[in-house]
Formats: sequence, structure tokens, C-alpha cells
Amino acid sequence: MTMSRRAFVGGLAGMTVLARTGSAQDPAAPAVQRYVRFLTGERVVYGLVDQETVYELRGSIFESPARTGLMYPFSKVKLLVPCEPTKVLAVGRNYASHLGELPPPANPELFYKPLTSLLDPEGTIIIPPGTQDCHFEGELVAVIGKKAKNVSVEEAKTCIFGVTCGNDVSARDFQANDMQWWRAKGSDTFGPLGPMIVRGLDYGNLLLTTRLNGEVKQQQSTRDLIFDLPTIVSFTSRYVTLLPGDVIYTGTPGSTSAMKSGDVVEVEIEGIGVLRNTVK
Amino acid sequence: MTMSRRAFVGGLAGMTVLARTGSAQDPAAPAVQRYVRFLTGERVVYGLVDQETVYELRGSIFESPARTGLMYPFSKVKLLVPCEPTKVLAVGRNYASHLGELPPPANPELFYKPLTSLLDPEGTIIIPPGTQDCHFEGELVAVIGKKAKNVSVEEAKTCIFGVTCGNDVSARDFQANDMQWWRAKGSDTFGPLGPMIVRGLDYGNLLLTTRLNGEVKQQQSTRDLIFDLPTIVSFTSRYVTLLPGDVIYTGTPGSTSAMKSGDVVEVEIEGIGVLRNTVK
Repeated sequence: MTMSRRAFVGGLAGMTVLARTGSAQDPAAPAVQRYVRFLTGERVVYGLVDQETVYELRGSIFESPARTGLMYPFSKVKLLVPCEPTKVLAVGRNYASHLGELPPPANPELFYKPLTSLLDPEGTIIIPPGTQDCHFEGELVAVIGKKAKNVSVEEAKTCIFGVTCGNDVSARDFQANDMQWWRAKGSDTFGPLGPMIVRGLDYGNLLLTTRLNGEVKQQQSTRDLIFDLPTIVSFTSRYVTLLPGDVIYTGTPGSTSAMKSGDVVEVEIEGIGVLRNTVK
Repeated sequence: MTMSRRAFVGGLAGMTVLARTGSAQDPAAPAVQRYVRFLTGERVVYGLVDQETVYELRGSIFESPARTGLMYPFSKVKLLVPCEPTKVLAVGRNYASHLGELPPPANPELFYKPLTSLLDPEGTIIIPPGTQDCHFEGELVAVIGKKAKNVSVEEAKTCIFGVTCGNDVSARDFQANDMQWWRAKGSDTFGPLGPMIVRGLDYGNLLLTTRLNGEVKQQQSTRDLIFDLPTIVSFTSRYVTLLPGDVIYTGTPGSTSAMKSGDVVEVEIEGIGVLRNTVK
């Protein structure tokens, strides 16, 4: 009950951005749309969020979905990972504030997280055996809306459907000692994602805040990304085809710290909401 | 036509193993089964291969599929990647002969390839812009048949459905210069897989041969794997849940070399067949 209220508060915070970038009262401004994926009874469906109501959708959110006519109070739905990717990419070293002594990269530096790492909003991050140093990494996540292969930076903008919040959970000891980051960043539950996909935001200028047990640990604007979202998508697409629903975690700012059992970690991005997870 | 004949020769070579490990004449011996995924008209279906005939199947090959009654000559079907993974894992440094001066790893060293890297048998490996040093890596690939989370080495054996051939194509310059191997080993077409999944083989003792334009470049038995398949599956499953259809490339032996446009690369594994691809 309390959990749903908190997620909803995140949703409300986002509404201020709706007013800023466009609303029903101003048809000339670009509309902001909020999509969720959720469980209702035994069915998994997509929905469009408007104020406190979720309108159930039929079909893919990437191809003009229709409303089914069913609707639910937002505070009552069980939110899931907001899309169904075929791959999850992530960018490392993409804020100067996170680089430490390292030089800035010449190109976006990417890696993969497996689909099994994805975790629902309010889901529990499970620290696996063998790591003593498992960190949060709050990030803006790009959601791909149409196939992208060898696209320019301009074309890439049309391939980005929207954005959401992500936590690129990272076991620093595995990261330091393994050849590649497969379990450091790919263990089960290491990819919290959500609570919703927001379309129509100016994603190049959003404040990202990560809190651990309510204390602010990371806070920076996406304006400070070394490689912005269209640049990342364009560069990636030279090598790896991106498909509708694929997601790209775009990097974390500042410094991170270890989480322990019982902790609550929240990634909040202006205009999107709060991605909240507990740790075990 | 020549292409199909060559694939079929691979299939025939496999039949000698059928005789070795079990056959219709010896019902007490474990049966070897050969599964393909193929295109017929506009439909993508699975099939069971027996001698020169493919029997079309209905449903998942991981859950007692039924024959539809349709059958095709093996030499006429257009083979596809033989299963539909949710993730592709690969192991590095898993043959002493490939280590060079490096010490053997303490645990299996894994990484991911994206689904978009998978390439059909007879498909064309496309060398992307920016690499001058794109190598073949012939490998035995494990195909997961049932969900594996925290399984023991003994339990892992029951999670391995079968094996196939793979080519872990690797751009050595990207591999040396990028932070992670996302494009070095994950670019489109860098994951040839097939031609079929074989169940019931002793996959711990198969001869693997890689040929470039007919010349043998790699040849070693899977007996020489540092970590065998059940050990890899068990270790992986401590961190990352494996699902039916997921595949794990298990590492390459000996040394590799660069491919160029027009080359033909073949990975042949005793009892499985020949995975043949051209390069562009």
C-alpha cells in the first residue's frame, strides 16, 4: 500500500513536466505520453497513464496501440518492467563526474546486460554469493521504438521512443576481477527498470537523483552526459541492430556506494518518476 | 545446390556417431536426435532429421514436440539458427592451447553476444567498418533445454538439451581497444550457429575442426576444454538464470586468423555437422 503510494508520488512529480512541455490545454505543444506495463489478474498488458488512471492498451506500444476500454486506478496496478526488450545495452564512463582519473572515452563504451537481469519496479535486488561490494548506479534509459541500423544522429532521434529510469547494479569486486562484466552487471535482478516509459520529454535536460534509504547519493542533469542519447543510438547502430523495445542504460554520474540487505534504493528522474527497489 | 550438399555431407558424417552411441537397432543405447529450425514457404518451423528426411514438428523442441505429418528432403530445406535463445553467452580462455602466455582462469570467464549477432548456417558474415582484424573462432555450443538457476554440476547435465556448432567471430582490434567486447564479438552476423542441435552425443569427446577456404586452421577435441559444459552451466546459473533455448559458446582452441571478403569458413564438429559461412 505504502509502496504504491510512493510510486504514485513519483508519477505526480512527473505531472509538473507535463505542464511544462505540453498539456491538453495547449494542443500546439508536443504531448507527453506515459506508458506502463502491468499485471491485471493473470494478464500482462500495456497501459497509458493519464493523471491517476491507467487505460489498458491492446497491441504493441510501438505501433499505435488501441485502448481496450478497460481502466484502472494507477495506485492499484502491479507495475512490471515497462517493455520487452530483445537486448539490453548500457554505456560506461558517460559522465565526467564518474570518470575519476580516467580520460573521457573517444566513442560510447557499451556492454550488455542479459534480459534475466531486468527487475520490476518495487522488485527486490538480490545480492548474489561471492560479492561484498554491490553498488547502485542510477541512470536514464533510452527505449528504442523502431529498428535502427546504420542510422545518423538525426535519424536516431526518431528511433528513440521514450525514456525511463534504470539502476545498473554493479558488483565492483566481480567487475575488477572478471575478464568481462557478465556477472558484475548481469546477475539476476541487476537491472531494475521503470516505473514507466515517458515519450515527448526533452531527455537531454532532466535532473537524475539516486537516493539510498532516503539520502541523496547521486544528483546530476542528463545535460552533462558525454554522449547524448541520439549519439549513442547512432554509434551503436553502426555495429549492432537495435529493435523496438530494446533499451540502453546511458551511464551513471558522480560516485556510487555499496548496498546491503534491507536498503531501499530509489532512482528518480524529473518527468518520469521514481524507480524504487529494496535489497536483499 | 552445392551449399546444401555440403551441409548434408556434414549431416552424413554425423551418422557415424549415431551408430557409435546408439541406433534403432539397439534400443538399450541412448538415441541420438537431430533437430533443425528451417524456413518452408513463409513459415519458420522446427524439424527432426532422420537420414535424408526432415519431419516437421509442432511446438517447442524442449517440450515433447509432435510431428505434424509434413516432411521434406533435408537437402531442400533452408536452415536457420537452430533455436530461439533469450540470451547468448560465451566462454573465453577455455582451451590451454588458446591461452598463449595467460594463466588458466580460476572460474569460467563469460561474456554476452546479443541475439542480433546470430547468423544462419550458410549466411554471410559481414565485416563492419573500422576493423582490420576480424577472426573466426570455431566452438562447441551448449543449448539449454530447461530453466537452470543455482544448479549443481550433476543437475546441469539434465539442463543441457544438446549441442551445436558456433563461430564466435571476433574483431581483435575492437577487442583490444574497447572497454568491453560489445562490438568485438557482438556485431551483427558475428554469431553463426548451427546447422543442427544434436541430442544424446558424448559432448565431452568430440573433434572440432575449423577450416578457412578448405584449409584446417583449428583442430582439437572437446576433451581438452578447461571447464566442461556441465561445469560452465552450473557456475553460470549461480548468477544468471538460464532458460530453454539459451546457448553458450564454450570457447575456441588453438590459434585463429583474420578473414577477408570472399573467404569461406567452416566449423565442423564430429557428430553434429558443418557450419559453413561466407565472408563479406
